Amino acid sequence: MKAFTFIAAAVTLLAFAAPASAQFAKPEDAIKYRQSALSVMGTHFGRVGAMANGRVPFDAKVASDNTEIVATMAKLPWAGFGPGTEGGANTKAKPEIWTEQAKFKENSDKLVAETAKLAAAAKTGNLDALKTAFASTAGTCKACHDAYRDK
Amino acid sequence: MKAFTFIAAAVTLLAFAAPASAQFAKPEDAIKYRQSALSVMGTHFGRVGAMANGRVPFDAKVASDNTEIVATMAKLPWAGFGPGTEGGANTKAKPEIWTEQAKFKENSDKLVAETAKLAAAAKTGNLDALKTAFASTAGTCKACHDAYRDK
Repeated sequence: MKAFTFIAAAVTLLAFAAPASAQFAKPEDAIKYRQSALSVMGTHFGRVGAMANGRVPFDAKVASDNTEIVATMAKLPWAGFGPGTEGGANTKAKPEIWTEQAKFKENSDKLVAETAKLAAAAKTGNLDALKTAFASTAGTCKACHDAYRDK
Repeated sequence: MKAFTFIAAAVTLLAFAAPASAQFAKPEDAIKYRQSALSVMGTHFGRVGAMANGRVPFDAKVASDNTEIVATMAKLPWAGFGPGTEGGANTKAKPEIWTEQAKFKENSDKLVAETAKLAAAAKTGNLDALKTAFASTAGTCKACHDAYRDK
């Protein structure tokens, strides 16, 4: 029975450890991946913002296409913050990400939810709905950056 | 009439020039964007390859999820190769991309088509179908890299 408990615990630990080790050969790969995904998301989010803030004319189709990409990209970066990917050169990720994993996950889950709402708002073709959803999503980005990204 | 022709030509030129200048503030932004999109695509394509090549056990759901991301990402990088984004530091993009634009576009269009087929193959849950589509897509990557990416 003791052996079974030990094996069960080991398997559980392996299951938790698996994502990082299985998905990325090296921590640098995970860092590059999450930065790339966040960068692509940021580019498309910026285009939505340009319309929400009136810097470029509102085009419902362009807004919708960009928010779709934002919502897809929002799901990706978090796999790159797995165990063993803290530290490293060329990263602004604060150590708190790994010491406050539940809170960090709350933030990333919130972004996924917000960007889905943003895409839904863009689909309505209503600029005011887009503005509201954009502001809310931007606030979610900022809150997480303030807490978990070095200046 | 002459003035109209001139204006029409100018508008046409502007329309062609718009994507690069409107979408990216600086050429470096376009370079970073296309590299990021290609990198994210490569990560997920690599995971499909690991299954297609038997390095990790085949999981139909994981394969399908990854091919969906690959197919989405495959549409993105090309906007980052617009006019004015040739040259620059930290890029392996060959000048031929800009002197052979029609051929380069053929290559990128082919990748979009191949990755859509790859996602469809993964959806069938049939490993042999996935292997075939993976090999074909990998060949498309390689042909374009051989022609347009510095070693």
